[in-house]
Amino acid sequence: MKNKIDIVGIGPGREDMMTGEALCALEQADVIVGYPLYLDLLEERFQKKERLSTPMRQEKERCILCFREAQKGKHVALVCSGDAGIYGMASLMYEIGKDYPQTELSVIPGVTAASSGASLLGAPINHDFCVISLSDILTSWVKIEKRLNAAAEGDFVIVIYNPSSHKRKDYLARACDILLCTIEEERICGYVENIGRSGTTTTICTLKELRNKKVNMVTTVFIGNTDTHVINGKLVTKRGYHLDAIRQ
Amino acid sequence: MKNKIDIVGIGPGREDMMTGEALCALEQADVIVGYPLYLDLLEERFQKKERLSTPMRQEKERCILCFREAQKGKHVALVCSGDAGIYGMASLMYEIGKDYPQTELSVIPGVTAASSGASLLGAPINHDFCVISLSDILTSWVKIEKRLNAAAEGDFVIVIYNPSSHKRKDYLARACDILLCTIEEERICGYVENIGRSGTTTTICTLKELRNKKVNMVTTVFIGNTDTHVINGKLVTKRGYHLDAIRQ
Repeated sequence: MKNKIDIVGIGPGREDMMTGEALCALEQADVIVGYPLYLDLLEERFQKKERLSTPMRQEKERCILCFREAQKGKHVALVCSGDAGIYGMASLMYEIGKDYPQTELSVIPGVTAASSGASLLGAPINHDFCVISLSDILTSWVKIEKRLNAAAEGDFVIVIYNPSSHKRKDYLARACDILLCTIEEERICGYVENIGRSGTTTTICTLKELRNKKVNMVTTVFIGNTDTHVINGKLVTKRGYHLDAIRQ
Repeated sequence: MKNKIDIVGIGPGREDMMTGEALCALEQADVIVGYPLYLDLLEERFQKKERLSTPMRQEKERCILCFREAQKGKHVALVCSGDAGIYGMASLMYEIGKDYPQTELSVIPGVTAASSGASLLGAPINHDFCVISLSDILTSWVKIEKRLNAAAEGDFVIVIYNPSSHKRKDYLARACDILLCTIEEERICGYVENIGRSGTTTTICTLKELRNKKVNMVTTVFIGNTDTHVINGKLVTKRGYHLDAIRQ
Protein backbone atom coordinates (compact mmCIF):
# COMPACT_ATOMS: atom_id res chain seq x y z
CA MET A 1 0.00 0.00 0.00
CA LYS A 2 1.21 3.50 -0.76
CA ASN A 3 1.81 5.84 2.15
CA LYS A 4 0.49 9.37 1.98
CA ILE A 5 1.55 12.97 2.56
CA ASP A 6 -0.84 15.91 2.30
CA ILE A 7 0.83 19.23 1.52
CA VAL A 8 -1.60 21.63 3.16
CA GLY A 9 -2.04 25.37 2.59
CA ILE A 10 -3.31 26.84 5.85
CA GLY A 11 -4.01 30.34 4.57
CA PRO A 12 -2.75 33.46 6.34
CA GLY A 13 -2.93 32.01 9.85
CA ARG A 14 -6.39 32.46 11.33
CA GLU A 15 -8.18 29.14 11.69
CA ASP A 16 -11.40 30.42 10.08
CA MET A 17 -9.42 31.32 6.95
CA MET A 18 -8.53 27.66 6.40
CA THR A 19 -10.69 25.50 4.16
CA GLY A 20 -12.67 22.56 5.54
CA GLU A 21 -10.50 20.25 3.45
CA ALA A 22 -7.30 21.61 5.03
CA LEU A 23 -8.67 21.27 8.57
CA CYS A 24 -9.81 17.72 7.79
CA ALA A 25 -6.34 16.77 6.50
CA LEU A 26 -4.75 18.05 9.70
CA GLU A 27 -7.27 16.19 11.83
CA GLN A 28 -6.60 12.94 9.98
CA ALA A 29 -2.82 13.28 10.11
CA ASP A 30 -0.70 11.28 12.54
CA VAL A 31 2.03 13.90 12.40
CA ILE A 32 2.07 17.54 11.34
CA VAL A 33 5.34 18.86 9.90
CA GLY A 34 6.10 22.53 9.27
CA TYR A 35 8.17 25.62 9.85
CA PRO A 36 7.97 26.36 13.61
CA LEU A 37 5.97 29.60 13.20
CA TYR A 38 3.22 27.80 11.26
CA LEU A 39 3.05 25.02 13.83
CA ASP A 40 2.58 27.70 16.50
CA LEU A 41 -0.44 29.04 14.60
CA LEU A 42 -2.01 25.59 14.82
CA GLU A 43 -1.01 24.89 18.41
CA GLU A 44 -4.34 25.58 20.08
CA ARG A 45 -6.36 23.20 17.97
CA PHE A 46 -3.80 20.48 17.33
CA GLN A 47 -1.80 20.43 20.57
CA LYS A 48 -2.30 16.70 20.99
CA LYS A 49 -0.85 15.85 17.57
CA GLU A 50 2.75 14.95 17.06
CA ARG A 51 4.40 17.97 15.48
CA LEU A 52 7.86 18.09 13.89
CA SER A 53 9.83 20.92 12.33
CA THR A 54 13.15 22.04 10.92
CA PRO A 55 14.44 25.64 11.10
CA MET A 56 14.13 28.28 8.35
CA ARG A 57 16.30 27.54 5.28
CA GLN A 58 16.13 23.82 6.05
CA GLU A 59 13.30 23.20 3.61
CA LYS A 60 14.95 20.19 1.97
CA GLU A 61 15.50 18.57 5.36
CA ARG A 62 11.85 19.28 6.24
CA CYS A 63 10.67 17.52 3.09
CA ILE A 64 12.88 14.49 3.74
CA LEU A 65 11.55 14.38 7.30
CA CYS A 66 8.04 14.09 5.85
CA PHE A 67 8.97 11.18 3.60
CA ARG A 68 10.78 9.37 6.42
CA GLU A 69 7.77 9.73 8.72
CA ALA A 70 5.49 8.50 5.93
CA GLN A 71 7.75 5.47 5.42
CA LYS A 72 7.08 4.55 9.05
CA GLY A 73 3.43 4.19 8.05
CA LYS A 74 2.28 7.54 9.41
CA HIS A 75 -0.17 9.78 7.60
CA VAL A 76 1.79 13.05 7.30
CA ALA A 77 0.51 16.60 6.83
CA LEU A 78 3.11 19.17 5.77
CA VAL A 79 1.78 22.68 6.47
CA CYS A 80 2.61 25.79 4.44
CA SER A 81 1.32 29.31 5.01
CA GLY A 82 -1.05 30.70 2.39
CA ASP A 83 -1.36 28.30 -0.55
CA ALA A 84 0.94 25.25 -0.51
CA GLY A 85 1.55 25.64 -4.25
CA ILE A 86 2.47 29.36 -4.31
CA TYR A 87 6.05 29.76 -3.02
CA GLY A 88 5.17 26.82 -0.76
CA MET A 89 6.69 23.38 -0.40
CA ALA A 90 4.66 21.56 -3.08
CA SER A 91 7.21 21.66 -5.91
CA LEU A 92 10.15 20.71 -3.69
CA MET A 93 8.10 17.77 -2.35
CA TYR A 94 7.45 16.54 -5.90
CA GLU A 95 11.16 16.88 -6.72
CA ILE A 96 12.35 15.01 -3.64
CA GLY A 97 9.45 12.57 -4.07
CA LYS A 98 11.24 11.06 -7.08
CA ASP A 99 13.36 9.21 -4.49
CA TYR A 100 10.26 7.92 -2.66
CA PRO A 101 8.02 6.29 -5.28
CA GLN A 102 5.95 4.50 -2.62
CA THR A 103 4.66 7.80 -1.24
CA GLU A 104 1.58 9.47 -2.68
CA LEU A 105 1.48 13.28 -2.53
CA SER A 106 -1.56 15.49 -2.62
CA VAL A 107 -1.72 19.27 -2.48
CA ILE A 108 -4.55 20.95 -0.58
CA PRO A 109 -4.89 24.55 -1.73
CA GLY A 110 -5.37 27.50 0.58
CA VAL A 111 -5.97 31.25 0.47
CA THR A 112 -2.74 32.90 -0.67
CA ALA A 113 -1.59 36.34 0.53
CA ALA A 114 -2.49 37.92 -2.84
CA SER A 115 -6.14 37.05 -2.11
CA SER A 116 -6.22 37.72 1.62
CA GLY A 117 -4.19 40.92 1.35
CA ALA A 118 -6.33 42.17 -1.54
CA SER A 119 -9.52 41.58 0.46
CA LEU A 120 -8.24 43.85 3.24
CA LEU A 121 -7.20 46.65 0.87
CA GLY A 122 -10.42 46.52 -1.23
CA ALA A 123 -10.25 44.94 -4.68
CA PRO A 124 -6.80 45.65 -6.16
CA ILE A 125 -6.36 42.39 -8.13
CA ASN A 126 -9.79 42.28 -9.70
CA HIS A 127 -8.14 42.17 -13.13
CA ASP A 128 -5.03 40.55 -14.67
CA PHE A 129 -2.12 40.48 -12.23
CA CYS A 130 1.40 39.14 -11.62
CA VAL A 131 2.87 37.70 -8.46
CA ILE A 132 6.62 38.22 -7.96
CA SER A 133 8.83 37.32 -5.00
CA LEU A 134 11.78 39.64 -4.25
CA SER A 135 13.70 36.87 -2.50
CA ASP A 136 16.92 36.22 -4.40
CA ILE A 137 17.96 33.22 -2.34
CA LEU A 138 16.82 30.80 -5.07
CA THR A 139 16.33 33.21 -8.01
CA SER A 140 18.88 35.60 -9.50
CA TRP A 141 18.19 39.32 -9.08
CA VAL A 142 18.64 39.66 -12.87
CA LYS A 143 15.56 37.44 -13.36
CA ILE A 144 13.55 39.31 -10.71
CA GLU A 145 14.42 42.60 -12.43
CA LYS A 146 13.41 41.18 -15.82
CA ARG A 147 10.05 40.12 -14.41
CA LEU A 148 9.40 43.48 -12.74
CA ASN A 149 10.09 45.19 -16.07
CA ALA A 150 7.84 42.80 -18.00
CA ALA A 151 5.02 43.21 -15.46
CA ALA A 152 5.21 47.00 -15.72
CA GLU A 153 5.30 46.85 -19.52
CA GLY A 154 2.19 44.66 -19.53
CA ASP A 155 0.25 47.05 -17.26
CA PHE A 156 -0.39 44.22 -14.80
CA VAL A 157 -1.32 44.82 -11.20
CA ILE A 158 1.80 43.52 -9.42
CA VAL A 159 1.70 41.63 -6.14
CA ILE A 160 5.05 41.43 -4.37
CA TYR A 161 5.80 38.63 -1.89
CA ASN A 162 8.87 38.66 0.40
CA PRO A 163 9.53 42.39 -0.12
CA SER A 164 12.14 42.60 2.62
CA SER A 165 14.21 40.66 5.14
CA HIS A 166 17.07 41.35 7.52
CA LYS A 167 19.60 40.84 4.75
CA ARG A 168 17.51 42.49 2.02
CA LYS A 169 16.34 45.72 3.67
CA ASP A 170 16.57 47.80 0.49
CA TYR A 171 14.97 45.32 -1.95
CA LEU A 172 11.55 46.98 -2.03
CA ALA A 173 13.23 50.32 -2.81
CA ARG A 174 15.27 48.64 -5.56
CA ALA A 175 12.13 47.09 -7.03
CA CYS A 176 10.31 50.45 -6.93
CA ASP A 177 13.25 52.12 -8.68
CA ILE A 178 12.96 49.57 -11.50
CA LEU A 179 9.19 50.07 -11.76
CA LEU A 180 9.59 53.87 -11.71
CA CYS A 181 11.43 53.63 -15.05
CA THR A 182 8.09 52.62 -16.62
CA ILE A 183 5.35 53.62 -14.15
CA GLU A 184 4.53 57.18 -13.04
CA GLU A 185 5.38 58.28 -9.46
CA GLU A 186 1.73 58.87 -8.57
CA ARG A 187 0.61 55.28 -9.36
CA ILE A 188 -1.60 54.03 -6.51
CA CYS A 189 -0.14 51.19 -4.43
CA GLY A 190 -0.89 49.52 -1.12
CA TYR A 191 0.46 47.00 1.31
CA VAL A 192 -0.74 44.80 4.14
CA GLU A 193 1.36 43.74 7.11
CA ASN A 194 0.70 40.66 9.30
CA ILE A 195 -2.30 39.34 7.34
CA GLY A 196 -4.52 37.04 9.40
CA ARG A 197 -2.49 37.62 12.57
CA SER A 198 -2.60 40.19 15.37
CA GLY A 199 -1.44 43.65 14.33
CA THR A 200 -2.75 43.59 10.76
CA THR A 201 -2.32 47.00 9.11
CA THR A 202 -3.17 48.28 5.64
CA THR A 203 -1.54 51.27 3.92
CA ILE A 204 -2.38 52.98 0.64
CA CYS A 205 0.26 55.25 -0.92
CA THR A 206 1.80 56.25 -4.23
CA LEU A 207 4.64 54.32 -5.88
CA LYS A 208 7.00 57.19 -5.04
CA GLU A 209 6.01 56.98 -1.38
CA LEU A 210 6.21 53.17 -1.39
CA ARG A 211 9.85 53.44 -2.45
CA ASN A 212 10.76 54.86 0.95
CA LYS A 213 8.56 52.69 3.17
CA LYS A 214 10.12 50.24 5.58
CA VAL A 215 8.13 47.02 5.54
CA ASN A 216 8.69 43.75 7.36
CA MET A 217 9.08 40.20 5.98
CA VAL A 218 5.41 39.30 6.36
CA THR A 219 4.16 42.12 4.17
CA THR A 220 2.37 41.78 0.85
CA VAL A 221 2.68 44.72 -1.53
CA PHE A 222 0.30 45.68 -4.35
CA ILE A 223 1.28 47.98 -7.25
CA GLY A 224 -1.83 49.19 -9.05
CA ASN A 225 -2.23 49.25 -12.82
CA THR A 226 -3.54 52.17 -14.91
CA ASP A 227 -7.12 51.28 -13.87
CA THR A 228 -6.46 51.27 -10.11
CA HIS A 229 -8.15 53.97 -8.02
CA VAL A 230 -8.93 54.79 -4.40
CA ILE A 231 -12.66 54.62 -3.68
CA ASN A 232 -13.75 55.52 -0.14
CA GLY A 233 -10.35 54.61 1.24
CA LYS A 234 -10.19 51.27 -0.60
CA LEU A 235 -7.78 50.23 -3.37
CA VAL A 236 -9.89 49.19 -6.37
CA THR A 237 -8.85 48.05 -9.84
CA LYS A 238 -11.72 48.62 -12.25
CA ARG A 239 -12.72 45.87 -14.65
CA GLY A 240 -14.17 48.14 -17.32
CA TYR A 241 -17.91 48.17 -16.65
CA HIS A 242 -19.65 51.28 -17.96
CA LEU A 243 -21.60 52.63 -15.05
CA ASP A 244 -23.10 55.85 -16.44
CA ALA A 245 -26.23 54.11 -17.65
CA ILE A 246 -27.18 52.96 -14.17
CA ARG A 247 -26.77 56.41 -12.57
CA GLN A 248 -29.85 58.14 -13.91
CA MET B 1 -26.33 52.32 11.71
CA LYS B 2 -24.57 51.17 8.59
CA ASN B 3 -25.99 48.18 6.76
CA LYS B 4 -23.64 45.46 5.57
CA ILE B 5 -22.81 43.37 2.52
CA ASP B 6 -20.25 40.56 2.54
CA ILE B 7 -18.74 39.78 -0.86
CA VAL B 8 -17.89 36.11 -0.42
CA GLY B 9 -15.49 33.95 -2.43
CA ILE B 10 -16.82 30.40 -2.25
CA GLY B 11 -13.86 28.68 -3.94
CA PRO B 12 -14.29 26.26 -6.83
CA GLY B 13 -17.64 24.87 -5.70
CA ARG B 14 -17.19 22.03 -3.24
CA GLU B 15 -18.31 23.03 0.24
CA ASP B 16 -15.15 21.69 1.92
CA MET B 17 -13.06 24.02 -0.26
CA MET B 18 -14.74 27.06 1.31
CA THR B 19 -13.13 28.78 4.30
CA GLY B 20 -14.80 28.80 7.70
CA GLU B 21 -15.15 32.57 7.39
CA ALA B 22 -17.04 32.25 4.09
CA LEU B 23 -19.41 29.60 5.48
CA CYS B 24 -20.01 31.74 8.56
CA ALA B 25 -20.86 34.80 6.41
CA LEU B 26 -23.42 32.76 4.45
CA GLU B 27 -24.91 31.37 7.64
CA GLN B 28 -25.30 34.86 9.10
CA ALA B 29 -26.78 36.37 5.95
CA ASP B 30 -30.49 37.11 5.60
CA VAL B 31 -30.27 36.87 1.82
CA ILE B 32 -27.70 35.29 -0.51
CA VAL B 33 -27.29 36.93 -3.92
CA GLY B 34 -25.38 35.40 -6.83
CA TYR B 35 -25.20 34.10 -10.36
CA PRO B 36 -27.70 31.19 -10.57
CA LEU B 37 -25.01 28.49 -11.03
CA TYR B 38 -23.24 29.52 -7.81
CA LEU B 39 -26.51 29.56 -5.88
CA ASP B 40 -27.12 26.01 -7.13
CA LEU B 41 -23.77 24.93 -5.66
CA LEU B 42 -24.94 26.17 -2.25
CA GLU B 43 -28.48 24.84 -2.49
CA GLU B 44 -28.13 21.78 -0.30
CA ARG B 45 -26.77 23.61 2.73
CA PHE B 46 -28.61 26.91 2.41
CA GLN B 47 -31.96 25.88 0.97
CA LYS B 48 -33.87 27.68 3.68
CA LYS B 49 -32.20 31.04 2.99
CA GLU B 50 -33.71 33.66 0.73
CA ARG B 51 -31.70 33.54 -2.50
CA LEU B 52 -31.80 36.11 -5.31
CA SER B 53 -30.04 36.25 -8.65
CA THR B 54 -29.74 38.02 -11.98
CA PRO B 55 -28.71 36.28 -15.23
CA MET B 56 -25.20 36.22 -16.72
CA ARG B 57 -24.04 39.61 -18.04
CA GLN B 58 -26.33 41.38 -15.56
CA GLU B 59 -23.57 41.95 -13.03
CA LYS B 60 -24.38 45.63 -12.47
CA GLU B 61 -28.01 44.77 -11.79
CA ARG B 62 -26.88 42.04 -9.36
CA CYS B 63 -24.77 44.55 -7.44
CA ILE B 64 -27.61 47.06 -7.26
CA LEU B 65 -29.91 44.28 -6.05
CA CYS B 66 -27.49 43.69 -3.16
CA PHE B 67 -27.49 47.36 -2.15
CA ARG B 68 -31.29 47.58 -2.33
CA GLU B 69 -31.69 44.49 -0.15
CA ALA B 70 -29.17 45.91 2.33
CA GLN B 71 -31.13 49.18 2.45
CA LYS B 72 -34.13 47.17 3.65
CA GLY B 73 -32.03 46.28 6.71
CA LYS B 74 -31.03 42.81 5.52
CA HIS B 75 -27.57 41.38 5.99
CA VAL B 76 -26.57 40.46 2.41
CA ALA B 77 -23.99 37.95 1.16
CA LEU B 78 -23.00 38.25 -2.50
CA VAL B 79 -21.36 35.01 -3.62
CA CYS B 80 -18.64 34.75 -6.27
CA SER B 81 -16.89 31.58 -7.44
CA GLY B 82 -13.21 31.26 -6.53
CA ASP B 83 -11.92 34.42 -4.87
CA ALA B 84 -14.33 37.38 -4.76
CA GLY B 85 -11.50 39.76 -5.58
CA ILE B 86 -10.06 37.91 -8.61
CA TYR B 87 -12.31 38.57 -11.63
CA GLY B 88 -15.13 38.57 -9.05
CA MET B 89 -17.66 41.22 -8.08
CA ALA B 90 -15.59 43.04 -5.43
CA SER B 91 -14.38 45.96 -7.55
CA LEU B 92 -17.76 46.56 -9.19
CA MET B 93 -19.37 46.58 -5.73
CA TYR B 94 -16.91 49.25 -4.54
CA GLU B 95 -17.61 51.31 -7.67
CA ILE B 96 -21.39 51.12 -7.35
CA GLY B 97 -21.03 51.52 -3.57
CA LYS B 98 -20.12 55.18 -4.12
CA ASP B 99 -23.89 55.72 -4.53
CA TYR B 100 -24.67 53.89 -1.27
CA PRO B 101 -22.50 55.50 1.42
CA GLN B 102 -24.57 53.94 4.23
CA THR B 103 -23.56 50.43 3.21
CA GLU B 104 -20.39 48.83 4.53
CA LEU B 105 -18.66 46.33 2.25
CA SER B 106 -16.31 43.56 3.24
CA VAL B 107 -14.56 41.05 1.00
CA ILE B 108 -14.10 37.48 2.22
CA PRO B 109 -11.35 35.81 0.20
CA GLY B 110 -11.56 32.30 -1.22
CA VAL B 111 -9.45 29.75 -3.09
CA THR B 112 -9.08 30.99 -6.67
CA ALA B 113 -8.85 28.65 -9.69
CA ALA B 114 -5.12 29.34 -10.05
CA SER B 115 -4.60 27.69 -6.64
CA SER B 116 -7.17 24.91 -6.90
CA GLY B 117 -6.26 24.06 -10.49
CA ALA B 118 -2.55 24.07 -9.67
CA SER B 119 -3.09 21.68 -6.75
CA LEU B 120 -4.70 19.14 -9.11
CA LEU B 121 -1.94 19.39 -11.72
CA GLY B 122 0.93 19.26 -9.19
CA ALA B 123 2.81 22.46 -8.41
CA PRO B 124 2.90 24.57 -11.60
CA ILE B 125 2.73 28.04 -9.95
CA ASN B 126 5.28 27.45 -7.26
CA HIS B 127 7.25 30.45 -8.56
CA ASP B 128 6.41 33.89 -10.03
CA PHE B 129 3.29 33.79 -12.20
CA CYS B 130 0.75 35.91 -14.08
CA VAL B 131 -3.01 35.53 -14.25
CA ILE B 132 -4.67 36.67 -17.51
CA SER B 133 -8.31 36.42 -18.59
CA LEU B 134 -8.99 35.92 -22.31
CA SER B 135 -12.45 37.46 -22.04
CA ASP B 136 -12.57 40.60 -24.19
CA ILE B 137 -16.04 41.66 -23.07
CA LEU B 138 -14.59 44.31 -20.74
CA THR B 139 -10.97 44.42 -21.95
CA SER B 140 -9.69 45.09 -25.47
CA TRP B 141 -7.97 42.20 -27.25
CA VAL B 142 -5.04 44.56 -27.89
CA LYS B 143 -4.47 44.79 -24.14
CA ILE B 144 -4.82 41.02 -23.66
CA GLU B 145 -2.28 40.45 -26.44
CA LYS B 146 0.11 42.96 -24.86
CA ARG B 147 -0.13 41.15 -21.52
CA LEU B 148 0.43 37.72 -23.07
CA ASN B 149 3.56 39.07 -24.76
CA ALA B 150 4.83 40.69 -21.57
CA ALA B 151 4.19 37.52 -19.55
CA ALA B 152 6.12 35.41 -22.07
CA GLU B 153 8.98 37.93 -22.15
CA GLY B 154 9.20 37.81 -18.35
CA ASP B 155 9.36 33.99 -18.27
CA PHE B 156 6.36 33.90 -15.94
CA VAL B 157 4.21 30.83 -15.49
CA ILE B 158 0.95 32.02 -17.08
CA VAL B 159 -2.47 31.07 -15.73
CA ILE B 160 -5.31 31.69 -18.18
CA TYR B 161 -8.88 32.23 -16.96
CA ASN B 162 -11.89 32.24 -19.31
CA PRO B 163 -9.99 30.59 -22.18
CA SER B 164 -13.09 29.97 -24.28
CA SER B 165 -16.81 30.60 -24.63
CA HIS B 166 -19.51 30.04 -27.22
CA LYS B 167 -18.60 33.29 -28.97
CA ARG B 168 -14.85 32.97 -28.41
CA LYS B 169 -14.14 29.39 -29.47
CA ASP B 170 -10.76 30.19 -31.03
CA TYR B 171 -9.39 32.48 -28.30
CA LEU B 172 -7.14 29.89 -26.67
CA ALA B 173 -5.63 29.10 -30.09
CA ARG B 174 -5.11 32.84 -30.70
CA ALA B 175 -3.43 33.22 -27.31
CA CYS B 176 -1.18 30.20 -27.99
CA ASP B 177 -0.19 31.66 -31.36
CA ILE B 178 0.91 34.86 -29.62
CA LEU B 179 2.87 32.92 -26.99
CA LEU B 180 4.47 30.73 -29.67
CA CYS B 181 6.23 33.83 -31.06
CA THR B 182 8.32 33.85 -27.85
CA ILE B 183 7.99 30.40 -26.28
CA GLU B 184 9.15 27.11 -27.82
CA GLU B 185 6.55 24.60 -29.08
CA GLU B 186 7.61 21.94 -26.58
CA ARG B 187 6.98 24.10 -23.50
CA ILE B 188 5.06 22.07 -20.91
CA CYS B 189 1.49 23.22 -20.22
CA GLY B 190 -1.58 21.83 -18.52
CA TYR B 191 -5.23 22.52 -17.93
CA VAL B 192 -8.00 21.55 -15.54
CA GLU B 193 -11.68 21.34 -16.45
CA ASN B 194 -14.56 21.58 -13.95
CA ILE B 195 -12.45 22.19 -10.82
CA GLY B 196 -14.25 21.26 -7.60
CA ARG B 197 -17.28 19.90 -9.49
CA SER B 198 -18.18 16.54 -10.93
CA GLY B 199 -16.22 15.59 -14.03
CA THR B 200 -12.92 17.22 -13.04
CA THR B 201 -10.19 16.32 -15.54
CA THR B 202 -6.53 17.30 -15.78
CA THR B 203 -4.43 17.28 -18.95
CA ILE B 204 -0.72 17.87 -19.46
CA CYS B 205 0.52 18.70 -22.97
CA THR B 206 2.95 20.88 -24.90
CA LEU B 207 2.17 24.45 -25.93
CA LYS B 208 1.91 23.29 -29.56
CA GLU B 209 -0.64 20.65 -28.56
CA LEU B 210 -2.53 23.10 -26.33
CA ARG B 211 -3.05 25.34 -29.36
CA ASN B 212 -5.41 22.76 -30.89
CA LYS B 213 -7.27 21.67 -27.75
CA LYS B 214 -10.95 22.43 -27.39
CA VAL B 215 -11.63 23.51 -23.81
CA ASN B 216 -14.84 24.69 -22.16
CA MET B 217 -15.56 27.93 -20.29
CA VAL B 218 -14.84 26.49 -16.86
CA THR B 219 -11.28 25.50 -17.69
CA THR B 220 -8.13 26.95 -16.17
CA VAL B 221 -5.00 26.76 -18.31
CA PHE B 222 -1.38 26.79 -17.13
CA ILE B 223 1.57 27.64 -19.41
CA GLY B 224 4.82 26.54 -17.77
CA ASN B 225 7.95 28.68 -17.59
CA THR B 226 11.50 27.56 -18.44
CA ASP B 227 11.73 25.75 -15.06
CA THR B 228 8.52 23.71 -15.47
CA HIS B 229 8.86 19.93 -15.80
CA VAL B 230 6.75 16.81 -15.60
CA ILE B 231 7.61 14.69 -12.55
CA ASN B 232 5.73 11.39 -12.16
CA GLY B 233 2.83 12.72 -14.21
CA LYS B 234 2.61 16.02 -12.31
CA LEU B 235 3.30 19.54 -13.63
CA VAL B 236 6.00 21.04 -11.41
CA THR B 237 7.75 24.42 -11.60
CA LYS B 238 11.06 24.20 -9.78
CA ARG B 239 12.04 26.92 -7.34
CA GLY B 240 15.78 26.51 -7.71
CA TYR B 241 16.78 24.27 -4.82
CA HIS B 242 19.99 22.33 -5.42
CA LEU B 243 19.17 18.74 -4.66
CA ASP B 244 22.37 16.88 -5.58
CA ALA B 245 23.79 17.20 -2.07
CA ILE B 246 20.92 15.28 -0.53
CA ARG B 247 21.12 12.36 -2.98
CA GLN B 248 24.22 10.65 -1.67
